[in-house]
Amino acid sequence: MTKRVREILSWYDSENAGVRSNLARMMNHGKLAGTGKFVILPVDQGFEHGPARSFAINPPAYDPRYHFQLALDAGCNAYAAPLGFIEAGAAEYAGEIPLILKLNNHAVLHDEKDPVSAVTGGVKDALKLGCAAVGFTIYPGSAGEKTMYQELREIGAEAKAHGLAVVVWSYPRGSSLSKQGETALDVVAYAAQIAAQLGANIIKVKPPTSAIEQPEAKKAYDAAKVQLEPLSARVKHIIQAAFDGRRIVIFSGGPRESDEQLISDVREIHAGGGFGSIIGRNSFQRPKEQALKLLNTVMDIYKG
Amino acid sequence: MTKRVREILSWYDSENAGVRSNLARMMNHGKLAGTGKFVILPVDQGFEHGPARSFAINPPAYDPRYHFQLALDAGCNAYAAPLGFIEAGAAEYAGEIPLILKLNNHAVLHDEKDPVSAVTGGVKDALKLGCAAVGFTIYPGSAGEKTMYQELREIGAEAKAHGLAVVVWSYPRGSSLSKQGETALDVVAYAAQIAAQLGANIIKVKPPTSAIEQPEAKKAYDAAKVQLEPLSARVKHIIQAAFDGRRIVIFSGGPRESDEQLISDVREIHAGGGFGSIIGRNSFQRPKEQALKLLNTVMDIYKG
Amino acid sequence: MTKRVREILSWYDSENAGVRSNLARMMNHGKLAGTGKFVILPVDQGFEHGPARSFAINPPAYDPRYHFQLALDAGCNAYAAPLGFIEAGAAEYAGEIPLILKLNNHAVLHDEKDPVSAVTGGVKDALKLGCAAVGFTIYPGSAGEKTMYQELREIGAEAKAHGLAVVVWSYPRGSSLSKQGETALDVVAYAAQIAAQLGANIIKVKPPTSAIEQPEAKKAYDAAKVQLEPLSARVKHIIQAAFDGRRIVIFSGGPRESDEQLISDVREIHAGGGFGSIIGRNSFQRPKEQALKLLNTVMDIYKG
Amino acid sequence: MTKRVREILSWYDSENAGVRSNLARMMNHGKLAGTGKFVILPVDQGFEHGPARSFAINPPAYDPRYHFQLALDAGCNAYAAPLGFIEAGAAEYAGEIPLILKLNNHAVLHDEKDPVSAVTGGVKDALKLGCAAVGFTIYPGSAGEKTMYQELREIGAEAKAHGLAVVVWSYPRGSSLSKQGETALDVVAYAAQIAAQLGANIIKVKPPTSAIEQPEAKKAYDAAKVQLEPLSARVKHIIQAAFDGRRIVIFSGGPRESDEQLISDVREIHAGGGFGSIIGRNSFQRPKEQALKLLNTVMDIYKG
Amino acid sequence: MTKRVREILSWYDSENAGVRSNLARMMNHGKLAGTGKFVILPVDQGFEHGPARSFAINPPAYDPRYHFQLALDAGCNAYAAPLGFIEAGAAEYAGEIPLILKLNNHAVLHDEKDPVSAVTGGVKDALKLGCAAVGFTIYPGSAGEKTMYQELREIGAEAKAHGLAVVVWSYPRGSSLSKQGETALDVVAYAAQIAAQLGANIIKVKPPTSAIEQPEAKKAYDAAKVQLEPLSARVKHIIQAAFDGRRIVIFSGGPRESDEQLISDVREIHAGGGFGSIIGRNSFQRPKEQALKLLNTVMDIYKG
Repeated sequence: MTKRVREILSWYDSENAGVRSNLARMMNHGKLAGTGKFVILPVDQGFEHGPARSFAINPPAYDPRYHFQLALDAGCNAYAAPLGFIEAGAAEYAGEIPLILKLNNHAVLHDEKDPVSAVTGGVKDALKLGCAAVGFTIYPGSAGEKTMYQELREIGAEAKAHGLAVVVWSYPRGSSLSKQGETALDVVAYAAQIAAQLGANIIKVKPPTSAIEQPEAKKAYDAAKVQLEPLSARVKHIIQAAFDGRRIVIFSGGPRESDEQLISDVREIHAGGGFGSIIGRNSFQRPKEQALKLLNTVMDIYKG
Repeated sequence: MTKRVREILSWYDSENAGVRSNLARMMNHGKLAGTGKFVILPVDQGFEHGPARSFAINPPAYDPRYHFQLALDAGCNAYAAPLGFIEAGAAEYAGEIPLILKLNNHAVLHDEKDPVSAVTGGVKDALKLGCAAVGFTIYPGSAGEKTMYQELREIGAEAKAHGLAVVVWSYPRGSSLSKQGETALDVVAYAAQIAAQLGANIIKVKPPTSAIEQPEAKKAYDAAKVQLEPLSARVKHIIQAAFDGRRIVIFSGGPRESDEQLISDVREIHAGGGFGSIIGRNSFQRPKEQALKLLNTVMDIYKG
Repeated sequence: MTKRVREILSWYDSENAGVRSNLARMMNHGKLAGTGKFVILPVDQGFEHGPARSFAINPPAYDPRYHFQLALDAGCNAYAAPLGFIEAGAAEYAGEIPLILKLNNHAVLHDEKDPVSAVTGGVKDALKLGCAAVGFTIYPGSAGEKTMYQELREIGAEAKAHGLAVVVWSYPRGSSLSKQGETALDVVAYAAQIAAQLGANIIKVKPPTSAIEQPEAKKAYDAAKVQLEPLSARVKHIIQAAFDGRRIVIFSGGPRESDEQLISDVREIHAGGGFGSIIGRNSFQRPKEQALKLLNTVMDIYKG
Repeated sequence: MTKRVREILSWYDSENAGVRSNLARMMNHGKLAGTGKFVILPVDQGFEHGPARSFAINPPAYDPRYHFQLALDAGCNAYAAPLGFIEAGAAEYAGEIPLILKLNNHAVLHDEKDPVSAVTGGVKDALKLGCAAVGFTIYPGSAGEKTMYQELREIGAEAKAHGLAVVVWSYPRGSSLSKQGETALDVVAYAAQIAAQLGANIIKVKPPTSAIEQPEAKKAYDAAKVQLEPLSARVKHIIQAAFDGRRIVIFSGGPRESDEQLISDVREIHAGGGFGSIIGRNSFQRPKEQALKLLNTVMDIYKG
Repeated sequence: MTKRVREILSWYDSENAGVRSNLARMMNHGKLAGTGKFVILPVDQGFEHGPARSFAINPPAYDPRYHFQLALDAGCNAYAAPLGFIEAGAAEYAGEIPLILKLNNHAVLHDEKDPVSAVTGGVKDALKLGCAAVGFTIYPGSAGEKTMYQELREIGAEAKAHGLAVVVWSYPRGSSLSKQGETALDVVAYAAQIAAQLGANIIKVKPPTSAIEQPEAKKAYDAAKVQLEPLSARVKHIIQAAFDGRRIVIFSGGPRESDEQLISDVREIHAGGGFGSIIGRNSFQRPKEQALKLLNTVMDIYKG
């Protein structure tokens, strides 16, 4: 157990030893073991965007076992997916890699401005499947946020009582936000704060742009001269917004983009004190060899 | 126990022995026993479309026992129906054919664009009636999908904990989908994926057309050059979308149509690697002798 | 126990002996004992329509005991009412006549196109009050049908587990139905089918008119040349729609009308194979002597 | 489904369809399928007598999978064993042979005149493991019989509510019985009656001797001139004692003995109307080939 | 994941992925990681024998953290202790070493011939403390064995449902056994069998002597010519008695003895196919450096 991992665990001293053990399990697995940094493979796109949009570009990825093996071979800290994908490999890969059971999901077949994910799994499932954590998405800004916050609050409490860590995907959405606003600095910072306030152990947000969505927030940013550039400065602000660095915040890679851009973003996230990346589409939407190479590069950056 | 049945069971290694036993019971019953292929008789039209639309054309079918006997005589793997129909024959036919209790149903007396089925039976009913599985319908794309997904998630977990297999009817519907979109390739593939992610052991979808409903999906299909013709190619894609062939996917026969068309479709489903058919209206909406002949032809195709 | 009663009980062979005993209790009580025919006195109009509309025309009927005595004196098979009315006489009339506790009710103080009845009693009440059955109303076609079907499913399962029979009032209503459609042949047949599929032991519907509400159903009726006249033909169709005659279906008398009409209807119901009548307003909205005379005439018809 | 199996199932018409289905599953499996006769392989001796006394004579029998395969190869109707043995093969043999989970067990490390078995499994285990029935031992005559009867009553009710059949091993024991009395005709008949009264679906007793243990019973036997010889007459009496032949009663083989004696006993059991044998030690305490030969001979006798 | 660990996990294919993951966690931790062999540090002597008898000889061992660190430094697979000891270090050592929460304990302040341990912790405690398994002691042969078997059966089912592995200490005791009998070959084999039949994932017994306690067992051993010498032959017999080698059986070190004797025993256990040792008093009742040296020697033997 490295000093850094112990330090991070010390921030979670209101959590029971089970939750802390599972946080440690993730921090001590894979190529980043002991660094306190994370690279997690998430594969919920099959549910969130549909199978062909997710996997047609790299057909072996239709097979649920592909992702367990990819996460394992790449040396990720954990693999996150919905119930069906985890069930399809948990027995075969028992004990090989920390698992995060994604407990709610949302599909794009129904048009809506204020989305609410459906609860598609439970804490008992996570325990039976040998998971280290549960994952839950909230859409701060959605008209249905009360539903999601309350579901998270109940599931989170149950998960922690059973020793599981809680990972929250906090993605601003909703009829009151502009499209640009979903990744605006103030909004992402707000989303990170909400997740932290809801008791998240690990928080996943998107890398913020330098836009500011809310006029009242703009005043505050201006007054305090919060630095908006470069990305590393914004990452630093997000980390600050999540309890001054005392909560693990990781950043999603977003849609497939050029490797240069992704790697440059990772450097900025690292420079800004981010705890890591959760890289889905940029991992499994390319041949495995290329994915392993990219993930290796990313991990090397986080190793510092 | 044939090698093929063992192979299929191996995909379900996160399920308990009870669930696996009931999957095996269905795979080892009737004329297709041991092949890993399925022909299931479903009779929920009385509830879904009304009795006269369902049975007036073949009046003996008003009698619930007719369908037990038809499924038995035809050598189907299982018979699926709502609570009332199963109750009306389960004692008399105890132990004669695997039963699937359909746990939710929807009637057409109320016009709605975003349907949600009502839960009309429970896991305890299924156990008391000696069923091998429970059935549940979801309408991906309906504004009420959250409700249905969560009901399925709870009922599915309870069913599996009691050793029952879970069969999911996944039928896209809803105000965001065009009529054509309900059977479009991308939408049916998505519906199969969602059912699999929700933990379905057996997935029932409609045979897809070559239409593509979602613009984002179209890009993916074009980029990956997914083959759209003939039907067997589309069936192959659906099977791929359901965990790369590691979940049992069967196809519904749809409304009564010419035997030539139905048989041609079955040949395509078989050629595309489909696991079988669930044939309701084309079975019970004709004299029994003709139904037996048709089902026999269908089973011969699946026997290969 | 007559051969006919035994035959009817044989249709309920998936029910436990308790449910069958209570069905037998009703079939073996009163003037129609042993015939398998039913005349039931229901008095829920006080709740459903208000007291004055129900009882002012025959003031002794304000007294709950009046109805127990009327049902007893007339030789009805059972008396059905909401919690308050049953509580007000159950002790005094303990063991004198089979009781049906109506478990949900609806009042007309609130205008709505898609009604949902309120659950006003429970299975434990029915047991404590010595009832033979519980009664439950569904409104097929109401936008709230999911709620009612699920309540019935839960209450019905609980009632049967405690040996009580389940009587379902199935009355089509809702914003998608025309007023005429509520008693159209196809809609009433559909309502009977839905009640049977939901596990009803006894089904109560209104006598159907020869109207056909749903275009799709009309095609089926035309194709199958279902006979629409006289009423007896329509009754026969309803009986067929309720599991081909294997469920007890009784018909309501509807609003107060001329005795000639009512008696003529009863003759048709009997001729069509109906299992009996449930006669409320035509019984208690007239002086008792007249009511006894009318009910006697009705019972004589069912005695055949 | 043969006429005989239907006849036997008709005796259990107070049980739900699930229990009847599972009785049918056992009656329709193996070489005696359809005859209404049973040969069951029970292997609880590892717990009851210790492993070496049970298996050292035929070491392959230490492996739990040996017994699944033996029961399957021999064409037994079912295989019965405690939790550990069933868990060790249920997944691998899912769906291959009806299983009976023995829910209580007793070891001989503690000397006692009034034994009480410990509850070592539950109904939920049986469902998860895909069993058709649960088994339970009672020791009528033991000072602890109240405990066992009450445990059976609770477990039996739970099992039946979940559709599982209940098999009762009824072995008289206790400080008030002589050693000879444990197999005396009156005592075994009494044990069969108690099991039947406790709701057993299948009753297992030892073949009775012609001894009569209880003086009061002796008077009754003398007065009624109950025939004591040969064994077939005693078997007939036991069958009569278990509800005049309306409950399935099977007989244990007892300790390893000469094949001639065992086969002669089976002929007598068959001649007396016994429903079959449960043969443990005489099956697995010899090389498999010899066991298969013996079991085949026994089954041929029951085939008649 | 080594081939050997996968092979061992395959024996537990009726367990859920959670249980298998936790078995894997223990097999993949410490110096024996990947070998399928175990050296576990158990420290329940404080409760079982009193603190001074346990720790006065090596006072640092009074501190609960001493044992976490010892297990960690020595590279044990796991550390097992009662609630208080685990609570006193679980937060500080979160995620550092697999923990086994010992759920029942027994003290020597009360003299009794038929001991029954008290349940001192629960499954929820184990989850909150981040444990990989629960531990439970049974005393086969004790007059109170029914109590302990039933407690284990309930706790074991709950533990497994929550993904925890179950470790059973099976120590024969009781008024019917001689002192020598507690470690007699037949009795230890019987104890191992009982634990396996009760569903234990890992079984802990004492190394057996060549004594045979039960006359009936002696006949079986003589007849089968079971080899009694050397210790490795007896270990082999115990392994056979625990489902023919398909359950993990580890051996306790017993009271403090000469290192030569202990090491010689370990060699025999290893030669006989034993899965490892659980070494308490010989570890913590000596200075830490000496303990580490001894444990290292033991692990080297198991590494083979």
